[in-house]
Amino acid sequence: MSRSRGFDEYGRVGEQRFRGAIEAARVGARGAIVRSIGTGKHRLAHTGATQYDPKVPMIPFAAIAVEDADYLHRKLERGTVTVKMRLGARTGPPAPSANVVGELRGRERPEEIVLVGAHLDSWDVGDGALDDAAGVGMALEVARLLRDARPRRTIRVVLFANEECGLSGAKAYAAAHAAELRRHVAAMEADAGGGAPIGLGFNVDEAARDRVRRLVGPLEALRVTDVRHTEHAGADLMPLTGVPQLALEQDATDYFEWHHTDGDTADKIDPIQISKAAGALAVLIAELADGEPLPRAPSPSR
Amino acid sequence: MSRSRGFDEYGRVGEQRFRGAIEAARVGARGAIVRSIGTGKHRLAHTGATQYDPKVPMIPFAAIAVEDADYLHRKLERGTVTVKMRLGARTGPPAPSANVVGELRGRERPEEIVLVGAHLDSWDVGDGALDDAAGVGMALEVARLLRDARPRRTIRVVLFANEECGLSGAKAYAAAHAAELRRHVAAMEADAGGGAPIGLGFNVDEAARDRVRRLVGPLEALRVTDVRHTEHAGADLMPLTGVPQLALEQDATDYFEWHHTDGDTADKIDPIQISKAAGALAVLIAELADGEPLPRAPSPSR
Repeated sequence: MSRSRGFDEYGRVGEQRFRGAIEAARVGARGAIVRSIGTGKHRLAHTGATQYDPKVPMIPFAAIAVEDADYLHRKLERGTVTVKMRLGARTGPPAPSANVVGELRGRERPEEIVLVGAHLDSWDVGDGALDDAAGVGMALEVARLLRDARPRRTIRVVLFANEECGLSGAKAYAAAHAAELRRHVAAMEADAGGGAPIGLGFNVDEAARDRVRRLVGPLEALRVTDVRHTEHAGADLMPLTGVPQLALEQDATDYFEWHHTDGDTADKIDPIQISKAAGALAVLIAELADGEPLPRAPSPSR
Repeated sequence: MSRSRGFDEYGRVGEQRFRGAIEAARVGARGAIVRSIGTGKHRLAHTGATQYDPKVPMIPFAAIAVEDADYLHRKLERGTVTVKMRLGARTGPPAPSANVVGELRGRERPEEIVLVGAHLDSWDVGDGALDDAAGVGMALEVARLLRDARPRRTIRVVLFANEECGLSGAKAYAAAHAAELRRHVAAMEADAGGGAPIGLGFNVDEAARDRVRRLVGPLEALRVTDVRHTEHAGADLMPLTGVPQLALEQDATDYFEWHHTDGDTADKIDPIQISKAAGALAVLIAELADGEPLPRAPSPSR
C-alpha cells in the first residue's frame, strides 16, 4: 500500500491479511502466503491477526516481506514455483490478563464518564512501541496533564488487555460496566501511533458535526482541522454500544513502515510529535469532561 | 553514522566493525558486540568483514541492529547487563571461484588497456543488489554501450571474484597480468551502488587534476562536477600498483540504509539513477580509451 497520512488504506488492504487464508482455502489452496501489507521495504514481514472460517480448511498462512514477495512474483513469471512452508507460530492456551483502570473524579457530575483508552498488549513481533505503547503513554499523559484541572465529569483512563486477539479486554469492560454505559458521555482511544495530531473523527450522528468542530477550535494552531465522520473510532470502543465515540487522527505517514513488524521499537516515536498528540488529546478530553454533551449514537437496532 | 552523499564516513565509522574484536580482546573482553554502522533503523544488523589479530584472543564478535544497541544502552544505564551470545556464523573451507574477463579490442592500440571492474560476490546477508550486482550491471552496460564505438585502446571488463573476504580475485588478476600492468592506462571499479553519478575521484598525481576535470566536461548536464583526489578508487583496484585509478562517485545517501543487511535486494536499485551512473561511466571509459593518457601513479617505493 502507499504511504498516506491516514489509516484508510489499511482497512482496505488489510483484507488480504485478514481473509487471505479463507479465500485461498475456498479455491483449494493447501497453504497461502500474503505479501506484507505495510509500506516498509526493509525485508521485515508485516504480521497480524488472521481469520479462519470453519466452513473451509484451516490452511497454513504466512506473511512475507515485500522483497520476498517480489522475488516470488519474478519466479512465477518464469514458471511453476514450489514453496516449502515451515511456520513457527502457534496458538497457546488462554492466559489471564487484566484491564487497568484509573480515574480523575469529576467535580460536579462524577457519575458521568469520559473514557480515554489505549491497549496494553501488542502483536508479538517488535516491541509494540507504536501499537500501542504510544497510546498508553498518551492516555497516561492526559491524566497527568489534567490531574489538577478538576473538570465537571469523571475522566476514566482504561488500558485494555488483549486488543490484538479478539478484543477480550474491551468486551469484558463493556460487560462489567453495562449498567454504566449510558452515563459514558464520550469515549476516545489512542491507538494510532505517535504521530502529530491532524484531525478528529466522530462516530456520532452527522447532526453533531458543528459541536465536534467546536471541540477542535483550540487546536487550530496545531493544524488539527480535519473533522470527519468515521465508523471506526477505535477497536476497543466497538463494544461500547451507544457511547459517543471520537478519534484523534494522527499523522500515519510513517506508521505502516513499522506497524506489526520487528521494527516497531521505541526509537520510532518522535517525542515532539507524540507530545503534540497527547496535548491535543488532553484538550479534547478536558472539553468533553466540562462542556455540552454530544448526542448519543444511534442504537444498534436502528 | 549520518546519511550523507559520499562514502567518507564509512571509512571512519567502519573501524568499529573492522577492529572492534581486536580492541575489545586487548582490554580483556570475552566477547564483543558492535552497534550496526549503517544508517538504517529497520531492526537489521549491518554486517561485514572483521579483523583478528593473532597477538590477542579471537573472541566472538557480533553486530546487532541499532534498535537493539539502543536497548542495551538503556539497560546499561541502570546497571550490569549479562548477554548470552549464540553465533551461527562460521568460516567454511576455501572454495574455487573465478574472475570473469571480457574485452572490446582497441582499434589502434589494442595492447593498451582501460579496465572497468566490479565484483561478483556479495556479503552473505541480503542479495547483494547494491553491493555489487549494481556495479556488475554497470560494467556490463558500459560494454554494451561501447560495443560499436571502437575506441583506440582495449576496454577490458573484469568481474572480480571474492572482493568481500580478502580481494583474492583482484590479487589473482594482478599476479596473472603483472607483465601487462604497465600497459593498463587506467582502471575504474563500479562498487558504489546504483545511485546517480555526482563526481569523479582520482588516485593519480595532483598534477593531473586539470586532465581529470576535462574528463567530466561532457557530464556537466548530469551535475557530475565534484572532482576530488581519493586514496580509495575501488577495493579490487588496490593490487594494481602503478595503474592510474579513477572512481565514479555516486549518490550514496540511501546506500548505507541497506548495504550489508538483509534488505540489500533488487528493489533498492532505482533504474533511472543507475542508468545515469552507467551512462556516465561509459562516457568516462570511452574518453580514457580514446584520449590522452593520464600520468602513471607514483610507484609504491616512493
